[in-house]
Amino acid sequence: MHKFELDTPTLLIDFDKAERNIARMQEMADSAGVKLRPHTKTHKTPYLAHWQLRAGSRGITVAKLGEAEVMNAAGIDDILIAFPLQGAAKMERLLHLAERARLRVSLDSMKVAQDISDAAARRGFKIPFYVEVDPGLHRVGLPPREPTRDFVRQATKLPGIEFIGLLTHAGQAYAAKTLEEVAVVGKQEGALMVETAEMLRADGIAVREVSVGSTPTARFAAQVQGVTEIRPGTYVFYDTMQVHKFACGWDDCAQTVLLTVVAKHPDRLILDGGSKTLSSDRGPGGAATFGTVVGFAHLEIYALSEEHAHVRVTGNGPLPDIGAKVQVIPNHACAVMNLHERFVATRGDEVLGAFEIAARGKLQ
Amino acid sequence: MHKFELDTPTLLIDFDKAERNIARMQEMADSAGVKLRPHTKTHKTPYLAHWQLRAGSRGITVAKLGEAEVMNAAGIDDILIAFPLQGAAKMERLLHLAERARLRVSLDSMKVAQDISDAAARRGFKIPFYVEVDPGLHRVGLPPREPTRDFVRQATKLPGIEFIGLLTHAGQAYAAKTLEEVAVVGKQEGALMVETAEMLRADGIAVREVSVGSTPTARFAAQVQGVTEIRPGTYVFYDTMQVHKFACGWDDCAQTVLLTVVAKHPDRLILDGGSKTLSSDRGPGGAATFGTVVGFAHLEIYALSEEHAHVRVTGNGPLPDIGAKVQVIPNHACAVMNLHERFVATRGDEVLGAFEIAARGKLQ
Repeated sequence: MHKFELDTPTLLIDFDKAERNIARMQEMADSAGVKLRPHTKTHKTPYLAHWQLRAGSRGITVAKLGEAEVMNAAGIDDILIAFPLQGAAKMERLLHLAERARLRVSLDSMKVAQDISDAAARRGFKIPFYVEVDPGLHRVGLPPREPTRDFVRQATKLPGIEFIGLLTHAGQAYAAKTLEEVAVVGKQEGALMVETAEMLRADGIAVREVSVGSTPTARFAAQVQGVTEIRPGTYVFYDTMQVHKFACGWDDCAQTVLLTVVAKHPDRLILDGGSKTLSSDRGPGGAATFGTVVGFAHLEIYALSEEHAHVRVTGNGPLPDIGAKVQVIPNHACAVMNLHERFVATRGDEVLGAFEIAARGKLQ
Repeated sequence: MHKFELDTPTLLIDFDKAERNIARMQEMADSAGVKLRPHTKTHKTPYLAHWQLRAGSRGITVAKLGEAEVMNAAGIDDILIAFPLQGAAKMERLLHLAERARLRVSLDSMKVAQDISDAAARRGFKIPFYVEVDPGLHRVGLPPREPTRDFVRQATKLPGIEFIGLLTHAGQAYAAKTLEEVAVVGKQEGALMVETAEMLRADGIAVREVSVGSTPTARFAAQVQGVTEIRPGTYVFYDTMQVHKFACGWDDCAQTVLLTVVAKHPDRLILDGGSKTLSSDRGPGGAATFGTVVGFAHLEIYALSEEHAHVRVTGNGPLPDIGAKVQVIPNHACAVMNLHERFVATRGDEVLGAFEIAARGKLQ
């Protein structure tokens, strides 16, 4: 079956491209001598997490306990939950999962450290934890150097958690305008973490992992001596944002949404998928448009309603008619994956079948 | 159980407020002498559609065939699908549904008119249709007056569809800055539709329905003599955007998301829900923030990651601690509903139970 025979909107994943993306990132990590622990929030699909593990990854990263539960139910047992977990209900689930999987968590406050330690100690567990360091993104994370060292000194005294290293996510790379700026962010991120790790070691604290994130910065941070682990996510599919951050080319983009033209005017078209399908995510850089229409460089998605993409004609060239199907490369692959319950896998134009996005919508 | 005992993120719907919102809009429609056909894309929940029907609505509006199927399976049989349906797969489903429900569709091109007519005529059906008119939003819809009349002349010749009236959605009201501007948009929308309907009638074409949309403009368009039907959706919950468009007050907002503080700094906080939970929808007006923290006027959600709300402290006052729970009124209620598989209903602070959002995620 040809992919254009599918009804729309349909989320498509090109398995040839995804396979190639997975292999290349693994090669890069292997040659830099760092472990790759992919962030699986991008695909939210155990089937693809297994591809990454078979390619050489030692474990995975997730954002939510609910994602960890889905991945573990699919047979994956080395999981980092990279979010400061809070509250009695989550402590209960965390410890239940810790009986079945090798878990790691990240945290950056004594409140979270204490809660996890208390819950774990009651069951005789010691949960390995990273301390999250803020590399300048100002989201979560402690300031590097002394504040991190002082925190680790305190946290290592708790009986139910075991310090294994430092973790950071240099999301500020998405504000970079040039490849050189991305490289600088990646190298600074790595250097800052290594410097902070050395400060801890000088204090007698063992630091096994220095773990850095983000797809655009991964290849630069991985080169910094002392970094042990990278956690990119989006590289499995890439997207419009990643092309603009120099992480890939258009031909590497494995995720597209198949849409139908439902209205046509000389200066604009309407497609049958909007923010419910492509997501209204403009990315941290605040993109002006909402995805890229494949094969039509003179079409620009300038606005989204919930069920409509508003497309402007910006130049000369053939226009698709009402009823014609087009593919759109979204701005942000992870956000799109969360909106769909399944994707259709293709190789070339040929449909392979539908796959459940089993960890989508896990909010808790 | 108190709502603050729930784990986070959790979507909350205050049933007292939703009930009151439904009753008030129905009273307004009744006193203006127009039918209310609520757009159920806001709640996507058959249980709440039944509330609207019991309050006096004669039928409902949906955006997608998949939503119509869910609503019909829940016993609702008067359904307008307000989207130009395209393609063989959808024609098959449309006709299958037409055997069980009283359907109406909207369309604005001969391609769609012809396809639906062909499919319906083959089965001996005549599908009632509205012609969508563009009131200045420039999304779908034909220009009013002559272009609409010329189109209706052609479309009424088709054997499988039956013209019932004109339909419009004045989404441009969301760009209005004052209540007066909203009122002008609503009155102009109504007047333009009535004028076009009169032009059709002068041409010998019966026009049973003049149907107008949007929550902010509903009360103004309903007053225009000749309008027969209004199709607001968001009024059932309201949201930050509706407060800013003068459609309601903060105390009318029935939808909130319960979140936990996971990081705290003197100048900013991080909450445990981001674009996956609150949606990155800024609304057509392009809001600067991503929702409203209830009870903390000096907190501003200035950015969202997928799993984090970034909150700025903009003034003096008490700050919630790590582990504390807060409620956020989202920017756009409909977009948020699509992100959650269920909501928890409350009356006051008391939890009633969880309800499935059965028509969420229906993309086709």
